[in-house]
Amino acid sequence: MASMEDIVSLAKRRGFVYQGSEIYGGLAGTWDYGPLGTLLKRNIVNEWLKYFVDGWSDMYQIDSAILMNPKVWQASGHVDTFSDPLIECTNCHARHRADHLLRANHILEDAINYDEPAPSPKWAELLKKIKCPVCGKTGGFSKLKQFNLMFKTNVGPVEDKESAAYLRPETAQGMFTNYKNILDSFYPDLPFGIAQVGKAFRNEISPRDFLFRVREFEIMEFEYFIPESIWEEKFEKWRKDMHSWFKHLDLPEAKIKEIEVPEDDRAHYSKRTIDFQYDFPSLGFDEIGGLAYRTDFDLKNHQEHSGKDMSYRPKDGSAPVIPHVIEPTFGLDRNFLAVLSNAYSEDEVEGEKRVYLKLPAHLAPVKAAVFPLLKNKPELVAKAKEVHKLLRKQIQGEVMWDDNGNIGKRYRRQDEIGTPYCVTIDFQTLEDDTVTVRNRDTTQQDRMKIEEIIGVVK
Amino acid sequence: MASMEDIVSLAKRRGFVYQGSEIYGGLAGTWDYGPLGTLLKRNIVNEWLKYFVDGWSDMYQIDSAILMNPKVWQASGHVDTFSDPLIECTNCHARHRADHLLRANHILEDAINYDEPAPSPKWAELLKKIKCPVCGKTGGFSKLKQFNLMFKTNVGPVEDKESAAYLRPETAQGMFTNYKNILDSFYPDLPFGIAQVGKAFRNEISPRDFLFRVREFEIMEFEYFIPESIWEEKFEKWRKDMHSWFKHLDLPEAKIKEIEVPEDDRAHYSKRTIDFQYDFPSLGFDEIGGLAYRTDFDLKNHQEHSGKDMSYRPKDGSAPVIPHVIEPTFGLDRNFLAVLSNAYSEDEVEGEKRVYLKLPAHLAPVKAAVFPLLKNKPELVAKAKEVHKLLRKQIQGEVMWDDNGNIGKRYRRQDEIGTPYCVTIDFQTLEDDTVTVRNRDTTQQDRMKIEEIIGVVK
Repeated sequence: MASMEDIVSLAKRRGFVYQGSEIYGGLAGTWDYGPLGTLLKRNIVNEWLKYFVDGWSDMYQIDSAILMNPKVWQASGHVDTFSDPLIECTNCHARHRADHLLRANHILEDAINYDEPAPSPKWAELLKKIKCPVCGKTGGFSKLKQFNLMFKTNVGPVEDKESAAYLRPETAQGMFTNYKNILDSFYPDLPFGIAQVGKAFRNEISPRDFLFRVREFEIMEFEYFIPESIWEEKFEKWRKDMHSWFKHLDLPEAKIKEIEVPEDDRAHYSKRTIDFQYDFPSLGFDEIGGLAYRTDFDLKNHQEHSGKDMSYRPKDGSAPVIPHVIEPTFGLDRNFLAVLSNAYSEDEVEGEKRVYLKLPAHLAPVKAAVFPLLKNKPELVAKAKEVHKLLRKQIQGEVMWDDNGNIGKRYRRQDEIGTPYCVTIDFQTLEDDTVTVRNRDTTQQDRMKIEEIIGVVK
Repeated sequence: MASMEDIVSLAKRRGFVYQGSEIYGGLAGTWDYGPLGTLLKRNIVNEWLKYFVDGWSDMYQIDSAILMNPKVWQASGHVDTFSDPLIECTNCHARHRADHLLRANHILEDAINYDEPAPSPKWAELLKKIKCPVCGKTGGFSKLKQFNLMFKTNVGPVEDKESAAYLRPETAQGMFTNYKNILDSFYPDLPFGIAQVGKAFRNEISPRDFLFRVREFEIMEFEYFIPESIWEEKFEKWRKDMHSWFKHLDLPEAKIKEIEVPEDDRAHYSKRTIDFQYDFPSLGFDEIGGLAYRTDFDLKNHQEHSGKDMSYRPKDGSAPVIPHVIEPTFGLDRNFLAVLSNAYSEDEVEGEKRVYLKLPAHLAPVKAAVFPLLKNKPELVAKAKEVHKLLRKQIQGEVMWDDNGNIGKRYRRQDEIGTPYCVTIDFQTLEDDTVTVRNRDTTQQDRMKIEEIIGVVK
C-alpha cells in the first residue's frame, strides 16, 4: 500500500506540489502548487462551483478580503477562543500541542474534535507520563498555555494595538459580513446561500502531514441561510449532497466516514456538526469537510457588535427574522490530497513496477498527450503537431505535447500525472492516417483512425 | 461623463464590489467582490489564462504560497528597499506619503514612478510650502522616514525576530523560487514562462481611488525566462501581446497609453520598463499593467542567497547560463476597474436617464436573463422556466432568472449589470412559441421563435 511519503515524492517529482520557499529550506506549513497541481486544483474548484454554485439561482458567490476589520473576529469569538493548548519542554524548549502529544501517545483516543480542543484539568496529570518527542525527557513540560491561532499584523504606518489586524482564519465571516449587502443588491428569497472559495491562515503550532495540517490553505464553502424551522430538513439535504460530492471526486464509499461530533467537542457556535473523513495513507481517517448548523449565532453576534439590523424581511409581509445558517465546508487542499492519494496506484507492467494516477477524466490535469514516435523525423513531428492541434481544438482541457525521451519513458511520465490517453504518431500514420491510442489503466494500445480519437478521449 | 463615484455607487448597488468589513466601518484599502464582481473577475482571469497560459506548451502555471521564507525578501531587495517616503504632520499627527503630497500640490509633475519613489534631498525644502490636508497647517512636517510596505507577521508560537515573516508584496518571487523545480519536473526548452494569478499585499500609507490603490490585491503575471541575447525581441513580442490583451478587454486604443519609464524611475531590478496606463474616470491615466526586463537580477540574487545553482543547461550541451527574465504584469483589480469604467454608459430612454454597462459578451457576468411577463401566472412561469433551462444548457456562462418587479424595472437592473440580452415570455409565447428578445445597447425588442434565441445570444 502507498504511504504518504510515496504521494509527497510523486507530487514533487511530477510537479504537483513543492515545498514552499524550498530553496531557502522551506517555511513550515506552506506548500506551492506546481503546474499539474494547479491544473488539478483548478479542476476541483471548477467542479465544486458547477456542483454547488453556478446556475443555482439561490446561490451567490463572493470573494471577500483576507484582511478584515479586527472587530469581525471579536464578534465571531475568534479573538477570545480560537486557540490551541501549547506546552513547552522545560528541558529543550521545543513547543508542542498538548492534545497532539496526548493523541500520539494513545492517551486521548475518543472522539475529540482536535481542531477545537477543550483542554481538561486532567491533561497536566496525563502529560507527566509523556516523553518530549524532541529531547526524550519525560514529563518536563511547562504549564499549558492557550495560543491564539490567528496570524497578526498591523495595518497602516503605526504599529500599535489600534492598528492590529488578523489574516482570516476562516472564510465564513466574509459571508456573514456581506449578508446584508446581498439582501440589498439581490432581494433573495429565503433560503439562499453565499459561497466562497478562498485562502485562510492558521498559525498551527506544528504543521504536519503534507497538505493536511498547514498554515496557509484554501476553503470552499457556503453559508446557507434558512428559517429556523427547516434546519433539520436542510441539514439532511446538504449532508447527502456533500456525500455525493465526494463520490463525484471518485473517492470510494469505504474510504469516506461521517462522524457525528458530540456536543462537548463541537465548535462554540454549532448545534450539530458532522465531520466528513477520508482514509488517508499513513494518516488514517481524518477530516476533509464538515457540515455545521451554526444557528443564528453569527448574524446575532454581528448585529450586536456592529449595531446593524441583520433581520430578513419575508416578502409575504410576515415578521422579520434573523435567519439560521447551515454551513457545508470543504478543505480544498485536503480534497486535493484525498483525490491524489486515492488515484495513486501501483502495478507491474512487463516485469517492472509501474506508478500511475487513476484520476477520473473530469479531474485529470492533462486529458491526453500526443507523441511523435521520433523527435528527429520532421515528417512525424509535423503530423503529430497537426493531431495535437486538432485535439486541442476539440477537447476541453489540457492536451500535452511530449517528445522527451523514448516512448516507454513518456508513457511512464504520463501515467504518473494521470493522463488517461496517449496518442502516438508513427510511420504507419504517414501511410494510412491511423495512430495508436494507449489507455492509462489497461496499458492497452489500439490502432485507430485519427478522427476516431476524439470519441475515445471524450 | 461618468465619475469614479458613479462607478463605486453602481458597483455597490448591483453587487459588483462592496467595501471590505463594511458593517464595521470598513478596513481601509480592502474591498469585497460581490456575486457579479466575482463572476466578472472570474471571466477576466479565465480569458487571461486562455490568452497567455493555457495550451501554450512553453507556459507553466503555478500557485505559490502567500507566506514565504523571509530570506526570499532579503534576496529580492524588498526588506531593504521596498518602502515609501512617510511624513507626519507635527501639528495633527496625520501621516502622509511625501510624494503624494508633492504631486497633489503640483510640485512634482514630471514622470516620476510614484510606486518606487527615490526621495531627493530637495523634498524637505519643497514640503515647507505645503499644507497638511488634514489640519491645514503649512510646512509642519516631521523628517521624512522610509516606511516598508510589507505586512509583517510571526510564524509559529514565538513572536521574535527569527519568526518574522511577510505577506508577499508581489507574486513574482514565487516564480523565481520555483524556477528550479520547474526545470527538474519538466525539462523545459528555453525560453519558457512561469505564470501565476494570486493575491499580494502592500501596507499602503494612504489607500485611495476605489480598487486602484489598495492594501490587498490580485496580480496576473508571468516570468518569461530567455537567453540574454534575445531580450529585445521578446520584450517587443510581449509589448505587442500586452497591447492586444487590453484590446481583448474591449478597452479603446485612445484610453491606453504606453509609458517608457526613464532609468531614474525604474525599479532597482529593471533595465527597461514600460507602464501600461488606462484613462480612468476622475483619476486620469494610471497604471494597469507593466512590462519589465528584470535581467538575471532575481535568479542571480537567489543563487547567491540560497547557495542553489540557478543555471540552465541547454539541451545541445552548450555552456550553462543563468536565464534573463521578461515580466509582463497585470493588476487584476485594476484591469477589472478599467473594464467596469469603460463599460459604464449613460443615455436617455423614453425621456429617462438610463445607466448600462456596455460589457463585451465574453466578459459580461450574466449572458442572458429570462423573465416571465407576470410572476403570478403559473402558465407563464412554467413556460419561462422551460426556456430558462434550455438556455442554461446551451449557453456557456450565467443565465439569470428574474421575476422581481415590472418588466421596466427588470430591464433597468439587467442593463446596470451588463446583460446583453433579456428574453421575455408573455401570453403570445403560449400561443405561438415566440418570445421577445431585448438588446441591451439598442434597447430594441425583437420577437422570435424560441429556437432562434440561441443563435442571437451566442
